[in-house]
Amino acid sequence: MENKRYYGIDIGGTTAKVGLLENGRVVRTWSVQTDTSDGGRNILPDIIASLPGPADGAALAVPGAVLPDGTVNRCVNLGWGVCRPSDEFTAKTGIPCRVLNDANAAALGEQRLGGGKGYESVLFVALGTGVGAGVVLNGKLREGARGTAGELGHLIWDPSDADAKCSCGHQGCLEQYCSATGIVRLADRAGFPGLTCKQVMDRAAAGDAALEAVADKACGILGWGIACACAVLDPEAVVLGGGVALAGEYLRLKVQNAFDAYAFHACLGTRIHLATLGSDAGLTGAAMYAMDGV
Amino acid sequence: MENKRYYGIDIGGTTAKVGLLENGRVVRTWSVQTDTSDGGRNILPDIIASLPGPADGAALAVPGAVLPDGTVNRCVNLGWGVCRPSDEFTAKTGIPCRVLNDANAAALGEQRLGGGKGYESVLFVALGTGVGAGVVLNGKLREGARGTAGELGHLIWDPSDADAKCSCGHQGCLEQYCSATGIVRLADRAGFPGLTCKQVMDRAAAGDAALEAVADKACGILGWGIACACAVLDPEAVVLGGGVALAGEYLRLKVQNAFDAYAFHACLGTRIHLATLGSDAGLTGAAMYAMDGV
Repeated sequence: MENKRYYGIDIGGTTAKVGLLENGRVVRTWSVQTDTSDGGRNILPDIIASLPGPADGAALAVPGAVLPDGTVNRCVNLGWGVCRPSDEFTAKTGIPCRVLNDANAAALGEQRLGGGKGYESVLFVALGTGVGAGVVLNGKLREGARGTAGELGHLIWDPSDADAKCSCGHQGCLEQYCSATGIVRLADRAGFPGLTCKQVMDRAAAGDAALEAVADKACGILGWGIACACAVLDPEAVVLGGGVALAGEYLRLKVQNAFDAYAFHACLGTRIHLATLGSDAGLTGAAMYAMDGV
Repeated sequence: MENKRYYGIDIGGTTAKVGLLENGRVVRTWSVQTDTSDGGRNILPDIIASLPGPADGAALAVPGAVLPDGTVNRCVNLGWGVCRPSDEFTAKTGIPCRVLNDANAAALGEQRLGGGKGYESVLFVALGTGVGAGVVLNGKLREGARGTAGELGHLIWDPSDADAKCSCGHQGCLEQYCSATGIVRLADRAGFPGLTCKQVMDRAAAGDAALEAVADKACGILGWGIACACAVLDPEAVVLGGGVALAGEYLRLKVQNAFDAYAFHACLGTRIHLATLGSDAGLTGAAMYAMDGV
């Protein structure tokens, strides 16, 4: 395994981030613009053109649902419908290729080399525009029977909250309170329209009491959701990533405190960490997933 | 493996149920009274005296938390504190022995030979005095980093419900609405004091509208909890066992409908089944667990 090379490719709506893994380390990373025109048909050829030579395996992390057989079930941000991009990748490169969800890739990256390093089972929560998540159990990704394991964002906190309608069709989903979008909405309802999530968190951390109440509500519901997930999964640790988690220790401590308040007693030792790989988490995890599969 | 023999031993507060597994089938079962006097020190010797000869492995299912290293962290119903009963069992019999939680044993039994047969990943929910649960993923028990995986009973439905204080220290836990005890309490609050859970469910099924509302509330919250657990675990199927599940299809259909109303869309194909092994689920799963470990 030591002399093998793997590509980890994290395809986002704006850029694809690519990493080359050698000797278990990401030795080089680069980006390729994502061309979403024409149903996204240029995305893979553009990425492939950037690859510096052959490899023993590759994995594509995509922003959409991936079924257990590797079929991608729509990536709205890429213009892709139901498709099998790993087949196209292998046909064009000769490199064996796997495909996984991008939040799952970030989970695996953070578990192996990031905020969850040293733990065998980790719940990773990505706090971005939405709330994604991934689950690593016994060192391997748990993707689920339908590819939806770890969907923390759609735990229903308050089914009666008509003010928190979710794109999934339900109301009161965790994502409606704890994502960047959700936090902006809570701030808006609290009388602070037009702020970004970063502004909300920065001002809350700087001592604005009304915005701190917004941060407390978001972190409280996230702590509740993590407590629910831990009661069911019982991972060793939890890692918070995504743009909202850039609020750092201020956020982490609030979430840890809320978790400790809601958690089943046997789960109380579970520690919540911050992610450390930033935007390289996805490509790192994808490369690890490629390595695991070969 | 075909010629090997395993004992599955499900130790309850009143009786221990023992099964002998040969050729992958439980060929004989019997019971031994549980003597909880003297800190439960006679329980294992009494069971051992009942065993018809040597075996290749055994497993003890116990009504309490089991840590990943096999240490039992108190079984109040048996009079046991922190102990390692598998060590005592092996010392006295020469038979390799494992220990697991009784709800986990029932989960494994139902997945292998009961209501979850044919599925590789199953969430099992035991609706008894409390709500226990167990998780089988990829054909193996997922016990969790702290032995608490699957603790569906302590998902917090309504943290503000001061009328639903749970023995775990929180309020509004799922168990407070969906266990036999919880259903009796809901019926009491609805103006029907003194009914058993079976009476509540029987009268509800027979058309008593007020008691049907109680059943709907219990099954609704259970469907919500299963939806939460499935969003996180994404099992292929769910199995309902325990005394409350003897209400059968009447209960199953209500829970399935509530699940369908709350579930994340990608989980909507998940089917809820009734357990089929009854009180043999635990000994069956324990015998399977013994076989898996040898």
